Amino acid sequence: MLWSGWGDPAKARELPDQIRRLLHDLMGVSAPAPAVAIDEVKLPPAPLPGVALAELREAVGAAHVRDDHEARVRHTRGKSTPDLLRIRAGDGSDAPGAVVLPGSHEEVLRVLEVCGRHGVAVVPFGGGTSVVGGVTSDVTGGGVIALDLARLDRLVSVDTESMVAELEPGLRAPDAERLLGEHGLTLGHFPQSYEYATLGGFAAARSSGQASAGYGRFDDMVVGMTVATPAGTLDLGRAPKSGAGPDLRQLVLGSEGAFGVITSLRLRVRRIPAETVYEGWRFESFAAGSAAMRALAQAGSLPTVLRLSDETETMIGLAKPEAIGSGDAGCLLIAGHEKDRQPAAAVLAQAGGTYLGAEPGQAWAHGRFAAPYLRDSLLAAGATVETLETATFWANLPRLYDAVRLALLGALGTPLVMCHISHVYETGASLYFTVVTGHGLAAWESAKREVNAAIVAAGGTISHHHGVGRDHREAYAEEIGPLGVEILRAVKERLDPAGIMNPGVLIPSPPRPAG
Amino acid sequence: MLWSGWGDPAKARELPDQIRRLLHDLMGVSAPAPAVAIDEVKLPPAPLPGVALAELREAVGAAHVRDDHEARVRHTRGKSTPDLLRIRAGDGSDAPGAVVLPGSHEEVLRVLEVCGRHGVAVVPFGGGTSVVGGVTSDVTGGGVIALDLARLDRLVSVDTESMVAELEPGLRAPDAERLLGEHGLTLGHFPQSYEYATLGGFAAARSSGQASAGYGRFDDMVVGMTVATPAGTLDLGRAPKSGAGPDLRQLVLGSEGAFGVITSLRLRVRRIPAETVYEGWRFESFAAGSAAMRALAQAGSLPTVLRLSDETETMIGLAKPEAIGSGDAGCLLIAGHEKDRQPAAAVLAQAGGTYLGAEPGQAWAHGRFAAPYLRDSLLAAGATVETLETATFWANLPRLYDAVRLALLGALGTPLVMCHISHVYETGASLYFTVVTGHGLAAWESAKREVNAAIVAAGGTISHHHGVGRDHREAYAEEIGPLGVEILRAVKERLDPAGIMNPGVLIPSPPRPAG
Repeated sequence: MLWSGWGDPAKARELPDQIRRLLHDLMGVSAPAPAVAIDEVKLPPAPLPGVALAELREAVGAAHVRDDHEARVRHTRGKSTPDLLRIRAGDGSDAPGAVVLPGSHEEVLRVLEVCGRHGVAVVPFGGGTSVVGGVTSDVTGGGVIALDLARLDRLVSVDTESMVAELEPGLRAPDAERLLGEHGLTLGHFPQSYEYATLGGFAAARSSGQASAGYGRFDDMVVGMTVATPAGTLDLGRAPKSGAGPDLRQLVLGSEGAFGVITSLRLRVRRIPAETVYEGWRFESFAAGSAAMRALAQAGSLPTVLRLSDETETMIGLAKPEAIGSGDAGCLLIAGHEKDRQPAAAVLAQAGGTYLGAEPGQAWAHGRFAAPYLRDSLLAAGATVETLETATFWANLPRLYDAVRLALLGALGTPLVMCHISHVYETGASLYFTVVTGHGLAAWESAKREVNAAIVAAGGTISHHHGVGRDHREAYAEEIGPLGVEILRAVKERLDPAGIMNPGVLIPSPPRPAG
Repeated sequence: MLWSGWGDPAKARELPDQIRRLLHDLMGVSAPAPAVAIDEVKLPPAPLPGVALAELREAVGAAHVRDDHEARVRHTRGKSTPDLLRIRAGDGSDAPGAVVLPGSHEEVLRVLEVCGRHGVAVVPFGGGTSVVGGVTSDVTGGGVIALDLARLDRLVSVDTESMVAELEPGLRAPDAERLLGEHGLTLGHFPQSYEYATLGGFAAARSSGQASAGYGRFDDMVVGMTVATPAGTLDLGRAPKSGAGPDLRQLVLGSEGAFGVITSLRLRVRRIPAETVYEGWRFESFAAGSAAMRALAQAGSLPTVLRLSDETETMIGLAKPEAIGSGDAGCLLIAGHEKDRQPAAAVLAQAGGTYLGAEPGQAWAHGRFAAPYLRDSLLAAGATVETLETATFWANLPRLYDAVRLALLGALGTPLVMCHISHVYETGASLYFTVVTGHGLAAWESAKREVNAAIVAAGGTISHHHGVGRDHREAYAEEIGPLGVEILRAVKERLDPAGIMNPGVLIPSPPRPAG
């Protein structure tokens, strides 16, 4: 992973000329903005207390505690655009004092024990792909470690009768697919961060992948889990579903490391499909396309992949990053089928869609993980590009769409705002926005606050699949209300009495006493 | 509802002669065991503190606070067999001091405030159909009220675009279906308690209905909810699914009144199907039948209703209560289809099933809510009949089935033990046991403890759809572990600091300090 951007530097792409022209003409972007060299990134000097460091080395083995410059840079923040802009400018002020790599559940428990005793904060770190500040703690430097789960990378067991596999959280998605593939199995979880994100991160942040229409969200796949917390071990999930009390798995899913560290996942798996066929459809408008998606979801005829670009995204051609700038009129819908495509095709045609054949679908499938590389090129060209997303019930979708667009336009002047729907349910859907602007970090962060407020005001959830992290913390508190926050605080105080787990993420600090 | 049994007394049924003979020959049952008259039920005398009673009358209106003998008897415990045996014997010792019927969310909040101030416990009461002690509190008589939700019985709104309806928790299921039916809609939730259970109870106890293969469990239907707690109001659910933090809806679902009172539910609804076709299939063995169900679930070809009786249940004919005793060999599978039945039929035939036509299916559908009436007749004849259920992953199902049967046989000598699978998932299924014995209450309660331990030891969940209540509390604590219990306690202490909400249900009391 490129420390200052996304993915494999060999896959970096030049911006097409049309895009450069568009950036210049519409947004006045022209100044290239290169990243500093990694050696120039400034880190907080404070080391961990010597005793803590010694005890951590004892706990996981000296080779698995790293405090060299590169390791610390590589564990500084996640991959949001503000994160990248800061690190590209040489700002490593949020770096942890050390990176600790435990090799087992027991070692994780030991690390938490040591850190609890020394008051050292712990940021669980999987692929480091958070785009919401999910791996950036309140505490920096010598007061915090990154707990990197890379060594917990085994496929523990496969049960092909129950179609359940036990996997460790540090597995990157492609490695998990490779290990399961040897058994003819797949998770079917392909978010845009697929190439680098880990299973533990998917669970901790309630990830949702591009094939969610067919495979469900990641939280739908989790049937059991083991969690190491400062207060001990949780082992949850004795059946697919239970009527016995609250579903505590759903309290850990989405907890973003604030309660503990997921050390094992029992996941529902499926047979690898013989073939997946991707195809394109055109709709006259975003409203017509989303009505077609709703019809599919409510008829129970969902394909595996279903994605609708709005007019702007279709025009720009963002669904086909390989052919960016060559987009079309109307709204492009991509459908991916693993089974009989006829039921879905009949509903789409009935809803006014024009069949475009397989080419647009194949183009999308080919470029589906390319967008983050494109972002690097845009950042290097001096543009700011970021994504944000939300979800709501169908009847509220147009209001939420308008509210987010208006907030972005109001805050940023003339940004390019594109949107797609990529996750649908019987009762509602997500909206995923991509924004390109010539404004810099400060303007973006101010716009982001306004969009967050607009989403809450328009009845949406603050995130459908990126999570809360630090960037959505205050808006999330509004979403679940003061009593919802109190529930999370109560759970955190019981599982993490010293408050060492990912402080500042998910849960707002208690209001300070007056006076 | 019959105070001493189930349902409408006019629907009471005589036991067929075959059953009487079987009870006598196999279990030595012959003595009829009639119920006392309602006037003879002994209630605890202690009234509520006068000030509390006055304030409750103030809060909800004097007409909506009842402390007459009949109201108190009718709110004493639920409908488990031990509950019925006790009340039939005149034991009303768990009766509440009064029954309070609030008419709105605000009135519920006020009742909780009054009760919190006076230290009066609150048992939320819907249909009163719990079979696990879910409406039986640690506190009795003047120290507790039943909070009856019968007046919260409105269909608040219908959104046919999102296919979401807002309904109040006191609605009985048939009334909810009638109100939704005027819009052409249905919940599709038909548990055996359907005729009397309420929506709030379904949510609070994570109910699962007979059409769960097609409609999902009740918790799958809940997209939003409002909850009145002693600490204030929770309002949850801004989207079908969210990536923003833990899913707090899943913490309230299954909380069984221990955290607060659900005062409104936003539920996913569907169009009423044009037709449902029920049919029967025969399999050679329970293993062959359950393998067929697994194949259906994993192929994504589930019908709406899917139920498989084991050899004993098939022989007794329990899937056709109207023709009890006339059962057949092998294992009877009932499938209910709302759409094209061919995909499921092909899988069932492929898995070795013999098609039996529509008659067995229609017979099951006709008698599907009759079993509780049959229980009354058995109790009156002096037999003890009770049900219990669990769930696990497919690979563990045979072990769990054997463990439960062995525990029952070991504890009760020669009971009649029947089982069916009625809820299936890709990764596992439920097991639902019906037990008939000539032993009385004490022997049953001892057997129940042994079965609970056997379920936990065999890796099952202590309940797939009846809930925890008081009867599964200790086994549930083992299932989720000490840290799981601590999570529930932490949430309860924050939402219900005075500990007035349904005390003794769901959450075991903290261990007493030693010495």
